[in-house]
Amino acid sequence: MLSARIHKYQSLVIENIEKPAISRGDQVLVKVGATGLCHSDLHLINGDWKDSIPLELPITPGHEIAGWIEEVGHSVPKGLFNKGDIVAVFGGWGCGVCIHCKSGDEQMCSFVKWPGIMTNGGFAEYVLVDSYRFLVKVKVELQEKEYNNNDKENDGNSTLRIEEIAPLTDAGLTPYRAIKKIRNSLGPGKNIAIVGIGGLGYYAVQYAKILGQSANVIALDRKDDKLQLARTMGADFTINISSQDHQGKQQEQRPLQKRSIREEILRITQGKGVDVVIDCVGTDNTIYDSIRLLSKGGLLVIVGLFGSQIKLPLVPFVLNEYSVIGSLWGNYNELCEVIELAKIAGKLKHNIHSFTLEDINRAISLLKEGKIIGRAVIVPK
Amino acid sequence: MLSARIHKYQSLVIENIEKPAISRGDQVLVKVGATGLCHSDLHLINGDWKDSIPLELPITPGHEIAGWIEEVGHSVPKGLFNKGDIVAVFGGWGCGVCIHCKSGDEQMCSFVKWPGIMTNGGFAEYVLVDSYRFLVKVKVELQEKEYNNNDKENDGNSTLRIEEIAPLTDAGLTPYRAIKKIRNSLGPGKNIAIVGIGGLGYYAVQYAKILGQSANVIALDRKDDKLQLARTMGADFTINISSQDHQGKQQEQRPLQKRSIREEILRITQGKGVDVVIDCVGTDNTIYDSIRLLSKGGLLVIVGLFGSQIKLPLVPFVLNEYSVIGSLWGNYNELCEVIELAKIAGKLKHNIHSFTLEDINRAISLLKEGKIIGRAVIVPK
Amino acid sequence: MLSARIHKYQSLVIENIEKPAISRGDQVLVKVGATGLCHSDLHLINGDWKDSIPLELPITPGHEIAGWIEEVGHSVPKGLFNKGDIVAVFGGWGCGVCIHCKSGDEQMCSFVKWPGIMTNGGFAEYVLVDSYRFLVKVKVELQEKEYNNNDKENDGNSTLRIEEIAPLTDAGLTPYRAIKKIRNSLGPGKNIAIVGIGGLGYYAVQYAKILGQSANVIALDRKDDKLQLARTMGADFTINISSQDHQGKQQEQRPLQKRSIREEILRITQGKGVDVVIDCVGTDNTIYDSIRLLSKGGLLVIVGLFGSQIKLPLVPFVLNEYSVIGSLWGNYNELCEVIELAKIAGKLKHNIHSFTLEDINRAISLLKEGKIIGRAVIVPK
Amino acid sequence: MLSARIHKYQSLVIENIEKPAISRGDQVLVKVGATGLCHSDLHLINGDWKDSIPLELPITPGHEIAGWIEEVGHSVPKGLFNKGDIVAVFGGWGCGVCIHCKSGDEQMCSFVKWPGIMTNGGFAEYVLVDSYRFLVKVKVELQEKEYNNNDKENDGNSTLRIEEIAPLTDAGLTPYRAIKKIRNSLGPGKNIAIVGIGGLGYYAVQYAKILGQSANVIALDRKDDKLQLARTMGADFTINISSQDHQGKQQEQRPLQKRSIREEILRITQGKGVDVVIDCVGTDNTIYDSIRLLSKGGLLVIVGLFGSQIKLPLVPFVLNEYSVIGSLWGNYNELCEVIELAKIAGKLKHNIHSFTLEDINRAISLLKEGKIIGRAVIVPK
Repeated sequence: MLSARIHKYQSLVIENIEKPAISRGDQVLVKVGATGLCHSDLHLINGDWKDSIPLELPITPGHEIAGWIEEVGHSVPKGLFNKGDIVAVFGGWGCGVCIHCKSGDEQMCSFVKWPGIMTNGGFAEYVLVDSYRFLVKVKVELQEKEYNNNDKENDGNSTLRIEEIAPLTDAGLTPYRAIKKIRNSLGPGKNIAIVGIGGLGYYAVQYAKILGQSANVIALDRKDDKLQLARTMGADFTINISSQDHQGKQQEQRPLQKRSIREEILRITQGKGVDVVIDCVGTDNTIYDSIRLLSKGGLLVIVGLFGSQIKLPLVPFVLNEYSVIGSLWGNYNELCEVIELAKIAGKLKHNIHSFTLEDINRAISLLKEGKIIGRAVIVPK
Repeated sequence: MLSARIHKYQSLVIENIEKPAISRGDQVLVKVGATGLCHSDLHLINGDWKDSIPLELPITPGHEIAGWIEEVGHSVPKGLFNKGDIVAVFGGWGCGVCIHCKSGDEQMCSFVKWPGIMTNGGFAEYVLVDSYRFLVKVKVELQEKEYNNNDKENDGNSTLRIEEIAPLTDAGLTPYRAIKKIRNSLGPGKNIAIVGIGGLGYYAVQYAKILGQSANVIALDRKDDKLQLARTMGADFTINISSQDHQGKQQEQRPLQKRSIREEILRITQGKGVDVVIDCVGTDNTIYDSIRLLSKGGLLVIVGLFGSQIKLPLVPFVLNEYSVIGSLWGNYNELCEVIELAKIAGKLKHNIHSFTLEDINRAISLLKEGKIIGRAVIVPK
Repeated sequence: MLSARIHKYQSLVIENIEKPAISRGDQVLVKVGATGLCHSDLHLINGDWKDSIPLELPITPGHEIAGWIEEVGHSVPKGLFNKGDIVAVFGGWGCGVCIHCKSGDEQMCSFVKWPGIMTNGGFAEYVLVDSYRFLVKVKVELQEKEYNNNDKENDGNSTLRIEEIAPLTDAGLTPYRAIKKIRNSLGPGKNIAIVGIGGLGYYAVQYAKILGQSANVIALDRKDDKLQLARTMGADFTINISSQDHQGKQQEQRPLQKRSIREEILRITQGKGVDVVIDCVGTDNTIYDSIRLLSKGGLLVIVGLFGSQIKLPLVPFVLNEYSVIGSLWGNYNELCEVIELAKIAGKLKHNIHSFTLEDINRAISLLKEGKIIGRAVIVPK
Repeated sequence: MLSARIHKYQSLVIENIEKPAISRGDQVLVKVGATGLCHSDLHLINGDWKDSIPLELPITPGHEIAGWIEEVGHSVPKGLFNKGDIVAVFGGWGCGVCIHCKSGDEQMCSFVKWPGIMTNGGFAEYVLVDSYRFLVKVKVELQEKEYNNNDKENDGNSTLRIEEIAPLTDAGLTPYRAIKKIRNSLGPGKNIAIVGIGGLGYYAVQYAKILGQSANVIALDRKDDKLQLARTMGADFTINISSQDHQGKQQEQRPLQKRSIREEILRITQGKGVDVVIDCVGTDNTIYDSIRLLSKGGLLVIVGLFGSQIKLPLVPFVLNEYSVIGSLWGNYNELCEVIELAKIAGKLKHNIHSFTLEDINRAISLLKEGKIIGRAVIVPK
């Protein structure tokens, strides 16, 4: 089968290798429909992480996978999956028996195996999934229609495409978990800010509207076109947080400009500040600045990993009872919920760019150059 | 001032009495703008509750009150309220120091004083409020406009009327608390049923949509016009639960008909049952039937008080880990949240019928006859 | 191997049958160390449940199992279990992929398989466990000693016996879950009542002390010797709730006596009532009476299944915001926690009576006759 | 009356001033029984905070106050307080109507008034309390005795002294809130570390045992005598975290030493790390080091304010889903709970040193010199 593999830490090698075979009863062979291309793939391919996460080369990356059941092992419960079923591959392959797995957070397993990193991933025609417990069956039917005859317009639910399912397993899952974690701080009169309207952030805006129970959603980014996208996704307010340097102002004035972001937030929130910030960027600066936007008792959830340090002033942190919360990927049930959302026509908006497996290195270049708006997915054949 | 009072347990006497005067520093005199007419007012006036809740006659009923600040006591913090401010009167006048008051649930206070029941209420030109702590200032300004210039259409937020504010303090508050309590059981792929689309139920449908985080909302009632209203308020599905007797079927077939409601729920929820039922009726039958609609781990929240007994089969209750939860009125912060919602133009829909104070007995007659759809409010002058 | 099986719904047949063999890679063969004898075993053997839970006869009952690893299937992760490891068998054999399994509540799985009911259980020399995911390794070592040299007396942690582990998987697990569910309602100044000091109740008293964060624990039962046991287990107060009929008083006086239980509770709780009742009996009467003991906002958790109906007065239920909560068995992590408790020397007290497999029918007779105080366990030689 | 006041930012002036008089109906005059001396009093007196918290001099400091009702304003509910009642003064004098006050967290009020800082405090014979809503009546009776006749030994509950009550309002309250916040992360098999066994820390150890539901409690400090105290208060394990520098080791070896603290924690927790750290110190170093002790999903709660910055490595923070939580003082209900604990004989241990009002400057000197172990309280007359 065709696959794209890391041999040395350079560009991927597109080559034919043997199709993987089931060797244990609970394994499942999945025919890949689409696999999302993630920034972390670039890091892996470049060897940026070779010291902290040493790979056994050659390896096939790709961890945002959707496809069809090709073959199931003999101990997969009968009838659970049939050949041809559409599946999303949950990426946190946990041990199944530790305290994290047994509370449903398999992605937090201490012995977790990530496809595309610790074992061959989705940039190939087939992927061998360690257990049927990591598959979500996606029933994309016109099911709404039959009930809705008298209640609702049918709105073409059948259009969810496999290219749209793949990124839901990571880019579409991570901000969902982050926002679900803090949904009790949202509701009428509450305010939530999303920092960074990139691949995760544009989903975060949508989830903030869906899970926010009418909280105001404020999107912050350095680029106007991303803020425009945020508005399309439902943001109630937007703030451009770019340094004013490029407008000819000087470095020293930065604190002034900082103050003005906070002032803008206070203006929007009628003096209260935001109840929650979801930081999808995670640079030292965005984190430091985000805490200053919070109201008393406010929460800062960090999902972005671009920086290296969390640095916050202690005294206001304690006096205002702030919290900072790390959030990683999502669990299986959360993936199911994201897919439930995606199945409701019009509920989630996607921005997908498809490339063939042969063309993957071009997709990588475009992503590196910042020319992918939304998500690139690789479609074998 | 003009007031409508209970002298004997008959119709209300409209008469001029002395305007109440502030006698303690934290009291506030409110000029009544509108007071909602509630079924419990009918019970009070009729004397239905004279044994369990003996009134000191004569008394002015009316507990769903909105109005304007007329005068504040000398120990009300300066600047907190100014003459003419629009206020909603929170009805749970708690002692302020018991465990319930100190956790914010003043309506649960053991020494609670209800206006209109234990002290003169809102069917009058003025009402004396026991403490400024029971007032919510309602800022109805065009505030959204100035921020929204580039982000949102201004949509006429200034149109929230005082007649619409009054019923929010009870009819619009009770179902809000009930649904907020169980919001963690809602979300994508979840299902919530609202039983009874009356004065509370039509708000419940709206809150289920707003707090439901994309859960499906299923409205159940015995009347098609109420189900039609539910659809207008956003219900995704509706089920008529009237006994089929009136269609010529016989009493014996009732179990069959019962099964078909459950079957309809299972069909809509793809075999799962609903995660939550909000019972706004609370008859012995609606409660008994509601439990059968639940999925494993399901919750039944009861706010309606039309019946006398909760009767449920024990074994399925335990095996399925069901819960039954009583919910009473709402607290001050929840009232603030409801008002926040109402201030967002188009977010909450109201169905209000206004009567003058002189005309209150006619309003009472219409309510008794079931001819008020939505809420009747009494507007002095 | 020797086993005790149901052939007809009569007494168990002790007979030699073939030792079970692993047929799927994730299965594990466990050499039985001890299996608890539960009231539900009596029901199964008697055929009381043959209509609702039809058994495929012959079958070996017994679902409270502890033992040693004998053999593991080929797909059990290497090193996870070794021959001779002590294991407790978690009884909720869930599908592993449904929403309940994936949130850690496998005992709530819709496709759950109970050992001893749907497949051969623990009244035998060996039991075949469906998956290694249902085993908890019990490390009973002198581990505390090495750390405690300077901190604590070593108190003989090594004495936890396999006969004590077995009942932890059900009798010792069910009340743990029930109390853990409501632990946020406990703490200083709170009060919890345990109704019924039988096999579950005597654990419930202990958990109420451990999880209660200094809440007062009140034990209620009809028998003084059970109340004496409750005091030994740490109950702060005890109340004998036996009807006074058998003391020569008349039926009509029962309400008076009822009132006096409530009065006694109010006296102990300084007029507040209890915050939580755990009903380990679950008759129609205990449920009805329990609700009357609650303080405002109180919770009634039902784990007992002796009755058939929950019957409660509606109006006080809603006005006081009571909740009734069903609680079933426990999940895998909760079992781990119970075992952690049991490993701390002196933390949990057990009351175990051991019988050989050959002697199981005598144990059954004694249990029927109410002569087992605590728990009977069957130990295959 | 005698009082100790700040005139200039130097030592306190002991002088006779006029006894305060009630000027508003809800005020209460309290005869001071004892007032705790806190490190923050030193900062105030020294003028360390004169820029951030400017005082209107002269002012009487002292915010940990217990005493007796002397006189109540006319709008205090009749019978709520009588002359001579023992009261603890809750220090978070909130506005009563903001979102924080109305959810029970008056100490978080944006308009909060602290006695001893914004108004005259407790280093005087009398203190004027802004509202009866800030008083907790302390019933110290032999109440347990009458119920316990047959159940429990009476253990001299009457011995709680007013000098012991005063520090409960801050030193004894702050760690209670911190630990109550995270009690859901505690239980059997869990581990909690308390960093810093000072005035707050020795209470924290006790609360960790009481609210910990059998979690292991690990105390960390730089001094062996404080660790000895922690063991007396119930700590299961203790670790001396002093840098090894002063034992003649070199700076470069510090990382090694750091690693060894973590190794010690891993050894105690069997490789897991602790689920919670309560940092009662809050220096940049304790915070940085604490995060490294956490297990996956671990929580760091900061109550100490000795440092200026929170500095944490980002990537492990997110990958392990850590949280950092600020916790400030406590609320009224939490104070009630602390007092409930203190009323149970033997439940809380106190370490109190009493000084007369005339002798306050000596107490201050001793506290400055680190010679107060436990808490100094000032007792007028």
